Amino acid sequence: MAASDLEIRAAEDELRRGFQTLEVVQKDPAVPVYHIYLNRAAQRNALTVPFFSELPRALSLLSVLPSARALVLAARGPHFCSGIDLEALRSLTPSPSPSPAAAADLLRGRILSLQAAISSLERFRKPVVAAIQGACVGGGVDLAAACDIRYCSDDAFFVVKEVDLALAADLGSLQRLPHIIGYGNAVDLALTCRRVSALEAKAMGLVSRVFPSPSALEEGVDQLAKGLAEKSSVAVMGTKAVLLKSRDQKVDEGLDYVATWNSAMLMSPDLEEAVAAHIQKRKPNFSKL
Amino acid sequence: MAASDLEIRAAEDELRRGFQTLEVVQKDPAVPVYHIYLNRAAQRNALTVPFFSELPRALSLLSVLPSARALVLAARGPHFCSGIDLEALRSLTPSPSPSPAAAADLLRGRILSLQAAISSLERFRKPVVAAIQGACVGGGVDLAAACDIRYCSDDAFFVVKEVDLALAADLGSLQRLPHIIGYGNAVDLALTCRRVSALEAKAMGLVSRVFPSPSALEEGVDQLAKGLAEKSSVAVMGTKAVLLKSRDQKVDEGLDYVATWNSAMLMSPDLEEAVAAHIQKRKPNFSKL
Amino acid sequence: MAASDLEIRAAEDELRRGFQTLEVVQKDPAVPVYHIYLNRAAQRNALTVPFFSELPRALSLLSVLPSARALVLAARGPHFCSGIDLEALRSLTPSPSPSPAAAADLLRGRILSLQAAISSLERFRKPVVAAIQGACVGGGVDLAAACDIRYCSDDAFFVVKEVDLALAADLGSLQRLPHIIGYGNAVDLALTCRRVSALEAKAMGLVSRVFPSPSALEEGVDQLAKGLAEKSSVAVMGTKAVLLKSRDQKVDEGLDYVATWNSAMLMSPDLEEAVAAHIQKRKPNFSKL
Amino acid sequence: MAASDLEIRAAEDELRRGFQTLEVVQKDPAVPVYHIYLNRAAQRNALTVPFFSELPRALSLLSVLPSARALVLAARGPHFCSGIDLEALRSLTPSPSPSPAAAADLLRGRILSLQAAISSLERFRKPVVAAIQGACVGGGVDLAAACDIRYCSDDAFFVVKEVDLALAADLGSLQRLPHIIGYGNAVDLALTCRRVSALEAKAMGLVSRVFPSPSALEEGVDQLAKGLAEKSSVAVMGTKAVLLKSRDQKVDEGLDYVATWNSAMLMSPDLEEAVAAHIQKRKPNFSKL
Amino acid sequence: MAASDLEIRAAEDELRRGFQTLEVVQKDPAVPVYHIYLNRAAQRNALTVPFFSELPRALSLLSVLPSARALVLAARGPHFCSGIDLEALRSLTPSPSPSPAAAADLLRGRILSLQAAISSLERFRKPVVAAIQGACVGGGVDLAAACDIRYCSDDAFFVVKEVDLALAADLGSLQRLPHIIGYGNAVDLALTCRRVSALEAKAMGLVSRVFPSPSALEEGVDQLAKGLAEKSSVAVMGTKAVLLKSRDQKVDEGLDYVATWNSAMLMSPDLEEAVAAHIQKRKPNFSKL
Amino acid sequence: MAASDLEIRAAEDELRRGFQTLEVVQKDPAVPVYHIYLNRAAQRNALTVPFFSELPRALSLLSVLPSARALVLAARGPHFCSGIDLEALRSLTPSPSPSPAAAADLLRGRILSLQAAISSLERFRKPVVAAIQGACVGGGVDLAAACDIRYCSDDAFFVVKEVDLALAADLGSLQRLPHIIGYGNAVDLALTCRRVSALEAKAMGLVSRVFPSPSALEEGVDQLAKGLAEKSSVAVMGTKAVLLKSRDQKVDEGLDYVATWNSAMLMSPDLEEAVAAHIQKRKPNFSKL
Repeated sequence: MAASDLEIRAAEDELRRGFQTLEVVQKDPAVPVYHIYLNRAAQRNALTVPFFSELPRALSLLSVLPSARALVLAARGPHFCSGIDLEALRSLTPSPSPSPAAAADLLRGRILSLQAAISSLERFRKPVVAAIQGACVGGGVDLAAACDIRYCSDDAFFVVKEVDLALAADLGSLQRLPHIIGYGNAVDLALTCRRVSALEAKAMGLVSRVFPSPSALEEGVDQLAKGLAEKSSVAVMGTKAVLLKSRDQKVDEGLDYVATWNSAMLMSPDLEEAVAAHIQKRKPNFSKL
Repeated sequence: MAASDLEIRAAEDELRRGFQTLEVVQKDPAVPVYHIYLNRAAQRNALTVPFFSELPRALSLLSVLPSARALVLAARGPHFCSGIDLEALRSLTPSPSPSPAAAADLLRGRILSLQAAISSLERFRKPVVAAIQGACVGGGVDLAAACDIRYCSDDAFFVVKEVDLALAADLGSLQRLPHIIGYGNAVDLALTCRRVSALEAKAMGLVSRVFPSPSALEEGVDQLAKGLAEKSSVAVMGTKAVLLKSRDQKVDEGLDYVATWNSAMLMSPDLEEAVAAHIQKRKPNFSKL
Repeated sequence: MAASDLEIRAAEDELRRGFQTLEVVQKDPAVPVYHIYLNRAAQRNALTVPFFSELPRALSLLSVLPSARALVLAARGPHFCSGIDLEALRSLTPSPSPSPAAAADLLRGRILSLQAAISSLERFRKPVVAAIQGACVGGGVDLAAACDIRYCSDDAFFVVKEVDLALAADLGSLQRLPHIIGYGNAVDLALTCRRVSALEAKAMGLVSRVFPSPSALEEGVDQLAKGLAEKSSVAVMGTKAVLLKSRDQKVDEGLDYVATWNSAMLMSPDLEEAVAAHIQKRKPNFSKL
Repeated sequence: MAASDLEIRAAEDELRRGFQTLEVVQKDPAVPVYHIYLNRAAQRNALTVPFFSELPRALSLLSVLPSARALVLAARGPHFCSGIDLEALRSLTPSPSPSPAAAADLLRGRILSLQAAISSLERFRKPVVAAIQGACVGGGVDLAAACDIRYCSDDAFFVVKEVDLALAADLGSLQRLPHIIGYGNAVDLALTCRRVSALEAKAMGLVSRVFPSPSALEEGVDQLAKGLAEKSSVAVMGTKAVLLKSRDQKVDEGLDYVATWNSAMLMSPDLEEAVAAHIQKRKPNFSKL
Repeated sequence: MAASDLEIRAAEDELRRGFQTLEVVQKDPAVPVYHIYLNRAAQRNALTVPFFSELPRALSLLSVLPSARALVLAARGPHFCSGIDLEALRSLTPSPSPSPAAAADLLRGRILSLQAAISSLERFRKPVVAAIQGACVGGGVDLAAACDIRYCSDDAFFVVKEVDLALAADLGSLQRLPHIIGYGNAVDLALTCRRVSALEAKAMGLVSRVFPSPSALEEGVDQLAKGLAEKSSVAVMGTKAVLLKSRDQKVDEGLDYVATWNSAMLMSPDLEEAVAAHIQKRKPNFSKL
Repeated sequence: MAASDLEIRAAEDELRRGFQTLEVVQKDPAVPVYHIYLNRAAQRNALTVPFFSELPRALSLLSVLPSARALVLAARGPHFCSGIDLEALRSLTPSPSPSPAAAADLLRGRILSLQAAISSLERFRKPVVAAIQGACVGGGVDLAAACDIRYCSDDAFFVVKEVDLALAADLGSLQRLPHIIGYGNAVDLALTCRRVSALEAKAMGLVSRVFPSPSALEEGVDQLAKGLAEKSSVAVMGTKAVLLKSRDQKVDEGLDYVATWNSAMLMSPDLEEAVAAHIQKRKPNFSKL
């Protein structure tokens, strides 16, 4: 929904004040792309409690900015993310311990809230690209799996680590990975906790491209995000929304849904512009949404 | 359902009269395989309005022919299909424009009708093989994804083009591709509109085989179709039907469905014949259905 | 559920008495892993009628043994499994034939019962690894697809054979393969009955690893199973259960399910132990379940 | 979709030529309501083979008439419908009998085609009201259950008759009745084949109103249909479509669907007109769709 | 599936040896109906641990008897069932208590096993009628809801008691009641634990008939069961199976399922016999299944 | 989740500052029940734009108060709610109007946000009772349908009004009513916009009780809410959560879900307390959650 100028300014102000666990930047004011960096490089970007409220907050603010037509989720330092911080994990279990039932109720609420933080990447209406170097472990895989497109450098490796921490992964990997890499691969990775190289990740479909170095990755991702930001917003957002909805529906339901969606969304000047630009062999100039 | 001789003759007659956008041929009267060719090579087989009524009509006629035990969907000229014709796309939006609601209602009806044309490939009870050379773009991908098996030549390339035309793909790619190439690959292709080579398509599972040339492709596809046509119809049609149903159900529901299906369909002389032929090491000779 | 000592002894006794079509062994009493071997090597381990009651019986007995923390499904002789025995297949159809309806009812009941035998691998709460060499054909593919992880040697090959026997596969391949290798590959294999090599199986995700020889396979599988058996049971069983449930649900439902599951299962001493062991850089020592 | 004048004329012509088993009339040219009468009163409107092609054909023709803004499904003579004609039922089973599998395949196709005829009432975009007097038995219940609203006279009675004909009802009662009268009532009626009076039908929710006589019923239904025809088409058709879709979805999916639907359909001049008429306390005058 | 004479005799023998918590009787050898009585009248038929293994065992034995074409679930004494025995409830929670996670795992297994006992009524292929007098409380409602048809005497009353025992009902009421009495009524009963009279139960659809006394109830139920037993088995079992499957599916899926089911099951001599009997105005004589 | 004292105080403060469209009161500090009153009696409590943000805000605040163990949604003045305010309805459609696609996107976002406000009643973890007098029209029905239990006085009447406003209801009635009153009744009410009296509403299951006057209603609702507040929170919240989840799932899935839920939640001291109180024939004293 179009935000008022007031809302936009307020969002920009709050983003400017910054976060503990994240850094949100628009690298180039001419390019409507924002980067969200995990910025606890010294701790290999282990996910702490504040992260799980800061990420959805940042996304909520970015969702009102017309200048955020595509996002990049990236990480400072040599590693993307080493997973949930052990202290954060421990703090999930209530203490001093009430009755097991009360403890379970508390715990369930906390897990749902962590899940919601991760899923906010998927619910962000514009595309989110993950740029992955080094370790992508445990909660890092959950994060990556909730992004729309994943690129990595060749030093990246992936570990669905949770079973080695004596728990069943509960932040989305067990739900999203089977759709991305197939059920057999997902079971293998989740049960064995084995390390998957960048190349194997590419072969499985876990990442779409592998770059020879972190800097090449950065360049590749920036170019991808810029390209996405230049496309018709109504088309990009519609495609993301319809893909997500269709992932969880029968094919026939998905077809009906996209017909209903497009019954309104096709009446866009972008379509005329795209056809005109195509015929005139020029770059189209799409409206903002 | 078994058609009467009268129906069969009527269907053959109508097929003989031909179509504007399609060519339907049985290459060899001894081989119960039909080819449907997109025959607007000069326009790279762009899909026009008549195509969307001719394709389901042709399939409806072929469904009554006992001599059509397998189909090939192929294309004349160097390219399989460049997608929906821009004029056809424009004609979807009603003009002169009634109220937005009335326009949306009209548009929704038209999209549903185009979708039904594509889905008629999937609903055809016998197997349909796509033979793809050159460009397979936009609506071409929708067509290919609705076939059962896809073979291509090494000059083929695939582009989910719709976002670059400022629209969300609404003819099935967003629903069917995730099942075929995985969700991550589908998002990547649909958002970036990037070009996928024959080899990458093979690695993703988008095509089952790549041939070194269009003529090798033709030969390979003809052999595949002939092979399918020689198999037991009750088995081939049952397998296609059960796979489609199971794609949209839980595993347990699919198991119950196939048990119910086979409770009748196993009582077929084909089964006896298959076992006998196997033991006698000869080619089985299956009944027609 | 924890079994009493009495139940455990009874199960061990019955396992010791053995089976016609299976051999169940714990290779090393110090390693809590059991192997189930198909032991009709002379018949290429074709699946006979007794097999379909012995397999679920064996799994039911193993489910009460604390020393069975992981299973291997393997086969004696050069081939994993040549599929359902033709005699067994024939015996499915009732004879002398009652009315078609009564025959269908009988047949449906028998198919459901065969399916249940295969699905008992999936329902076994602890992980099951398939070790595949030589032919894995027809019912062999159904068996393999119901295991959690599949490894093979490079001489292995896979054929979804049923259409060539004039029937639609009804023991799970048409339901499980699309999740494992993608829908396009599954249609291709099921309709063409073509032979898939070990390498292609790996590329498709049908197997997770290929070993250069049957003996290397054996070693690799034993190591895998031992590794799984050493992990936290509550984590491994939870992960298997949640993956299976989530395979058949929307992503959001799966997230809620795992949050509810973990609300109880996270309150495990294994979690503390895992964290402690991680910090102390030692091997964790998990409780039995 | 708006039909051209040509299409409208052709439809009117074909309707005028009439049907064997149906009578289609617009009672009053000033009232945009059509009645479809089952017109085999002498046979208590037993459903014959031609009926199952004539009903969908009539609905298909009516769907292009702007003057058919609501339909009534009614019956000539003292009884609504005594169910499927025994001859028609017998003709379902193929004869001379091919193999059981081929017979089953034929039979399945025929049942699907009968079902499609019944479901065409539900798929008709504008509202269909059933007017029921006397017997509503077997296939008559299937017909009634596929209409949107059911009114009856107090001599009406309902019997889900199929089990007494030694078959499981396969034209929709087992699927639609549980939604209408609850699962317990549906099981009771379907297993016992007991006769349900008009009053009990009202208490169960099977009919919405009971009238003291067939003529009062006629008047009541005509008034209802006229009222529906005067309402905003975009609202009525949208409500029918969304109710049907939501019946088969989770609540959350239904909410998303109606939001997407209304995103286009709310942009209708009818809404302005309704509000204006409401404020000016006059009857609204809605656009045609 | 047709059982051998040997199986039948073994089942009869085991039934004759009897149960602790149940009494299984065929009242009249000429009438193929069995009664299962809860026989702990002194304890108001509170459900103890043995009950949950005896009920599924009894049903399993009855399923092989050709003389059990319909069942009645009834109770000795003035009350149908006062719910789960408090001792049984307490024994669910493991003691001495292992870790919360291990306890939860045990508990979950035990609940699933109790649920399976209740659901065995629903899974029994032939119809099961509940005859309810006096108290039907807690677990008694779970039992009744899993039967196909419920009759009661006017002294019967129903209480969804679990919330007053400080737990969420977990034996099926929360899943089955909304289908039977509507969601609003189900929430009301489950949250308030209020007492529902026989008359209100009838109005809600919870029971199909109310009788003026327990003896009238007995007579009414016996007549109903006898009537069901005389109908065509293939029709009755098919109807029960299709209703159950359709309860959990979309309408369109249910239609496809019943078409597939009937493609085999319509080829029954019962159908011919029903039509012949109907024409000859005599009682049909159906084959056994 | 248990809130800190700080959070509780902050919530109490914000509630004390009050709302424009709502009045939130705890009538008796000794009774842990809150009432939310629609307080625009002069406008028949028509729903304005602020209402849709104030309702979820109020619920969010109440969710942290331990003293809010049950809620009542009621209304000041003679009418419960006359539906969405026409000005609010008009403001939904964007103006000045951007392109139809952009307008549709805005509109869809706004509808989703209104829906979320209504659904917050359903998502509130503790029970919410609606107390309805006078008119309950349009949006009023949406509100009532999202509550857990509905009571009304005998002057209450219900109208699903949206079609008369030329729109398809999009705030939940079309999704929730079929579950509550059956599909046939829901279609009838939604298409005809007819007025339903309190008595008919009771017969349909739309309300659970009808009181002879608004003051009797108030007393009845207060007693109900007090009763709910005294029950075990873990049981009440679990029952509400499981009912909601099961409404949207197959019966088998719901059974597995509640088993998993109870595996943790049964380990509650409330259960012991309930049993003890039952045996000692005293009122139980449950822990807070």
